[in-house]
Amino acid sequence: MAESTSMRLRLPLICIILEVILIILFGLLVEYNDDTHAKLWNANKTHSATRNDYENEFYYRYPSFQDVHVMIFVGFGFLMTFLQRYGFSSVGFNFLIAAFSLQWATLMQGFFHGLHHGKIHVGVTSMINADFCTGSVLISFGAVLGKTSPVQLLVMAIFEVTLFAINEFILVSLLGANDAGGSMTIHTFGAYFGLVVTRVLYRPNLDKSKHRNSSVYHSDLFAMIGTIYLWMFWPSFNSAITNYGDPQHRTAMNTYYSLAACTLATFAFSALVNPEGKLDMVHIQNAALAGGVAVGTAGEMMLTAFGSMIVGFLAGTISVLGYKYLTPVLESKLKIQDTCGIHNLHGMPGVLGAVVGAVTAALASPEEYGQGLQKVFGDVKTGDWDPQSKGGFQAISLAVTLGMALFGGLLTGFILKLPIYGAPPDTHCFEDGLYWEVPGEEEGHNELNEVATPNEMEKLSS
Amino acid sequence: MAESTSMRLRLPLICIILEVILIILFGLLVEYNDDTHAKLWNANKTHSATRNDYENEFYYRYPSFQDVHVMIFVGFGFLMTFLQRYGFSSVGFNFLIAAFSLQWATLMQGFFHGLHHGKIHVGVTSMINADFCTGSVLISFGAVLGKTSPVQLLVMAIFEVTLFAINEFILVSLLGANDAGGSMTIHTFGAYFGLVVTRVLYRPNLDKSKHRNSSVYHSDLFAMIGTIYLWMFWPSFNSAITNYGDPQHRTAMNTYYSLAACTLATFAFSALVNPEGKLDMVHIQNAALAGGVAVGTAGEMMLTAFGSMIVGFLAGTISVLGYKYLTPVLESKLKIQDTCGIHNLHGMPGVLGAVVGAVTAALASPEEYGQGLQKVFGDVKTGDWDPQSKGGFQAISLAVTLGMALFGGLLTGFILKLPIYGAPPDTHCFEDGLYWEVPGEEEGHNELNEVATPNEMEKLSS
Amino acid sequence: MAESTSMRLRLPLICIILEVILIILFGLLVEYNDDTHAKLWNANKTHSATRNDYENEFYYRYPSFQDVHVMIFVGFGFLMTFLQRYGFSSVGFNFLIAAFSLQWATLMQGFFHGLHHGKIHVGVTSMINADFCTGSVLISFGAVLGKTSPVQLLVMAIFEVTLFAINEFILVSLLGANDAGGSMTIHTFGAYFGLVVTRVLYRPNLDKSKHRNSSVYHSDLFAMIGTIYLWMFWPSFNSAITNYGDPQHRTAMNTYYSLAACTLATFAFSALVNPEGKLDMVHIQNAALAGGVAVGTAGEMMLTAFGSMIVGFLAGTISVLGYKYLTPVLESKLKIQDTCGIHNLHGMPGVLGAVVGAVTAALASPEEYGQGLQKVFGDVKTGDWDPQSKGGFQAISLAVTLGMALFGGLLTGFILKLPIYGAPPDTHCFEDGLYWEVPGEEEGHNELNEVATPNEMEKLSS
Repeated sequence: MAESTSMRLRLPLICIILEVILIILFGLLVEYNDDTHAKLWNANKTHSATRNDYENEFYYRYPSFQDVHVMIFVGFGFLMTFLQRYGFSSVGFNFLIAAFSLQWATLMQGFFHGLHHGKIHVGVTSMINADFCTGSVLISFGAVLGKTSPVQLLVMAIFEVTLFAINEFILVSLLGANDAGGSMTIHTFGAYFGLVVTRVLYRPNLDKSKHRNSSVYHSDLFAMIGTIYLWMFWPSFNSAITNYGDPQHRTAMNTYYSLAACTLATFAFSALVNPEGKLDMVHIQNAALAGGVAVGTAGEMMLTAFGSMIVGFLAGTISVLGYKYLTPVLESKLKIQDTCGIHNLHGMPGVLGAVVGAVTAALASPEEYGQGLQKVFGDVKTGDWDPQSKGGFQAISLAVTLGMALFGGLLTGFILKLPIYGAPPDTHCFEDGLYWEVPGEEEGHNELNEVATPNEMEKLSS
Repeated sequence: MAESTSMRLRLPLICIILEVILIILFGLLVEYNDDTHAKLWNANKTHSATRNDYENEFYYRYPSFQDVHVMIFVGFGFLMTFLQRYGFSSVGFNFLIAAFSLQWATLMQGFFHGLHHGKIHVGVTSMINADFCTGSVLISFGAVLGKTSPVQLLVMAIFEVTLFAINEFILVSLLGANDAGGSMTIHTFGAYFGLVVTRVLYRPNLDKSKHRNSSVYHSDLFAMIGTIYLWMFWPSFNSAITNYGDPQHRTAMNTYYSLAACTLATFAFSALVNPEGKLDMVHIQNAALAGGVAVGTAGEMMLTAFGSMIVGFLAGTISVLGYKYLTPVLESKLKIQDTCGIHNLHGMPGVLGAVVGAVTAALASPEEYGQGLQKVFGDVKTGDWDPQSKGGFQAISLAVTLGMALFGGLLTGFILKLPIYGAPPDTHCFEDGLYWEVPGEEEGHNELNEVATPNEMEKLSS
Repeated sequence: MAESTSMRLRLPLICIILEVILIILFGLLVEYNDDTHAKLWNANKTHSATRNDYENEFYYRYPSFQDVHVMIFVGFGFLMTFLQRYGFSSVGFNFLIAAFSLQWATLMQGFFHGLHHGKIHVGVTSMINADFCTGSVLISFGAVLGKTSPVQLLVMAIFEVTLFAINEFILVSLLGANDAGGSMTIHTFGAYFGLVVTRVLYRPNLDKSKHRNSSVYHSDLFAMIGTIYLWMFWPSFNSAITNYGDPQHRTAMNTYYSLAACTLATFAFSALVNPEGKLDMVHIQNAALAGGVAVGTAGEMMLTAFGSMIVGFLAGTISVLGYKYLTPVLESKLKIQDTCGIHNLHGMPGVLGAVVGAVTAALASPEEYGQGLQKVFGDVKTGDWDPQSKGGFQAISLAVTLGMALFGGLLTGFILKLPIYGAPPDTHCFEDGLYWEVPGEEEGHNELNEVATPNEMEKLSS
């Protein structure tokens, strides 16, 4: 008899314990920052009160935050609803682990980014950073989608958020790396972390659930909601925490052009690799986004629209080819079961983005950037500016990220392998009915019921 | 033979008459305010033209307005599409009554908030306030969903908007209450108003439509679109009309933390109250939002992230427990048929929010707020500041709101009971086909057709 | 045997060639503008660095841009998913041609709007303008929806974008026309261009695909996502490129009131024209938006809320009546097969908007606008201000637009008629399966499979 999959006690227990710990730690450690604190903000202001209130960072970061927020909850959540029978879990578990991760990330990032007299200061920038870290967890979720219980996902989030914060600290604070849009910290890290986790959790008998590991007509349309929102708001994502002024403006625009070129590459190669020339929804839903990933590091630099479009075109191309030719090999040879193909959307394009970032940084010159140089490369201020060594540090950052992801994924994978989380059996992967009250079925879904009858379900849950 | 449900004349008549009245009243009473009037804005500006145009309130309120607008039309509209056969009506009637209410609210709120030489001045702030008032009507719509004709809903909106404006006037202008996010004015008022209306409209034979009063797989996914948008943009909702600077920033952040904690509580208790430990979509769709409602009053105060998370956790908990244990009792004992469970999402969390607001206000001190005190509590300026009496006035505001909602709901309910609006018969509640041309069916819906054949429909409509 | 519809070579070829041309032209011609260039932005700034970064146009245009972007990709994309079996193509081809058009439009508009030393300068304003031009192409797409291959659509976009840019140049630069929201340049042009194209592509045997040219229950709900997003963000659309300050604020508000009034008219007349008084989703999805189109020219003027509501009410009315009475006649008498009814949503309301704009301009006076006059009508600055001749130029602009649309549509239509693009045969219009890998079907779709069996499909694609 298989392990029970009931969430009756497991899920409430972990949710309540985690939230209580979070609340206690927030009570001990978290304070309003200068822009959100009634006393500090108004004390810091000079004479002209009205004018100064308009300068609160809220007005320059919050619209970007909301766009990022939409990507995290609608973008990632709906992108994963493509599976025919896993929509509740996709959008629901995405919701749960994101809500947890953003709280936990606030603490971890606050701790590593620098305490103020032992306290973590929060405001809209910390909210964006927490959402970014959450994005990384959701990328990894894509690799294990359909094969994990919500308790496993929460445990994964605990570790991944922590390691994300450490990696981000090493890159940004120690190595002085540029990575505003997170090609390395978010995409490369999240992708390879998730791939290692799913490798450790390899299920040799997953084909027992194969018939559910595909889409139906309307589930593909729901997934397109996620795709389009990610695509539209990616310029906001990459530019959300750059410096004010030209860098933020430029980043958004570079991303816009990269994505547009990527989309044409995606349609081109999707038709080309299909024997009948038919487009594949999997490619459109995913590969068209690779252009956003691939300018996550270089987007704030003087990459130019021209450069952005080349990068985007390349990203779309390798992403489609990855779905077509690499993913099946990863599964059959390396035993990496990557449900959403995150290697193609976040892994390879993330590495590409890191490389593009290193090269673009190595080519940066005071002639080209003028006084804007130090707004992009903070090192200029400290007199440490040397484009080639900067490029080198960017490359080292990629290596560190890959190392952290592999090590972290391995560690986390083995922890998730413990038979205590109520993971789904091989026969019931990609199936909402295991963890959700599924409403009386439409006739169109009858064939699924035959696979998992209420009786079987009951046995599993008891 | 039952009353005809045809909308052939009823709906055009009421829509056209209402819109003509609105247009006439707008022509007589409404003027551009200083920020939207070509002459006034440019006359008020001093020398440096460019600089000043950037200070137009448009740039500091409009992004919040758009987020609120999305909540009203997509959030509420899609949240209610969970019913298997009422999606057209949910999103369509939501659209209709919102479009009417925001116009009517502009007039009513303009009248009570203070005329300028007999004229109502409009701009982005009045647009946000009108959307807020509309939100209250849509909350009440949730209680009567599936059991009312669009004409009834418009009549309900006429009365509810009017009483909302009066209640808001008493609270904000007479009692000087704080309620930026509307825990009292919007949520408590809308919920108890709607609950009384549905009580008056009690249908003893509603179980004749019981088989349609539930979701199907894809309708639950559509509803999640509504949920997630409401959840994401709630920080904008609560902060949309606070004072500029730290209060707006702080409100958004407090709401963000409250919602995150609420979500973990919702998942925990949803699994806990289910015998098999399965999650219930009704809880996730609704209770996870209670955290936004519950910080609607205190959100702009120095509630801290810690306090916000405690409030959010409580709100999620009582909301799930309400769905599980209270809603059935309300229906069986008190004859309150609350289709969407607004008592759990808006009623109890709204009251909780009012209480939290009163307590937080009573604890506010100049030491904690510094010069920011008067930006939150306007009374400071007039020298009336006394935290404890402030707390008392907040509590009185809750009582007034409950009184107005009960009285208003009773009055409106009896008006809606008149047999002239083409309300659906007990056998055809929760059914789009009564008021909409429903397209040729997918096979999956055949069982529904058996319930309401074209013939029957024709008879009803004739 | 019919022409092959395979996209195996055609689509990759055109996508890759176009993107390579775009990349080369961008490399040769496109440069960052003053607000996005690291050197220029920081050189132009004066002392107080922090303050000035806040004045980057990014912060005053980008939120509007994102709203417009949502309308282009989600709004148009999902609005067209109403067809039962064409959702992939609707949202997918919309995605493809929009991604192409915004790049091509950047070049064409940059060329006609004025080069800077032979270079095109780009920033957030050019991004908005490119999205606007793209909107025009997507309007035309609505007329030919379901009857064209993606290659045809890309070819259409090449020509339409080019002619759009020329027409816009004539109107804005030569005639000095006001048209911030594009009643003429976007809606009238896109609609009549598309109608002429579909006329040239007339299919006498289209009724062979008639059974697929309609909606199903859930496809109508997906379409409502598009509708509601278009409706909500239309105030941002019309105001996105107006001058800063009062004009932008006023435009957004006028559009808001116009749309609200339009919605009530739409519901009224939809019920009135139906024998049983039932509402028709086609009207709600489309006609409720006509109010946004109809204030696209006059929205920035002192139209007043009162005037906006009258215009919106009229627009909704003629749009519903157009769907009911005119569209069938256009098809039977004039052989114009207008899949989405763009004549009712964009054509007639666009012309109405042009006329309202001309009249409102002719009535504008310095008494009413004060110093704000020249912010709306730039001609004031040059001393050319004469309201009546201004009104005349607005009227001439409409005539020019209609001429350009008819001529351009005719030319483009004949080019699209060439039998080389893999257009669908009459028996397989409105069918995703021709160009997409469609997933294993839900039972509800079986009847569709009977129409187009895999065998038939294979034959067509070979």
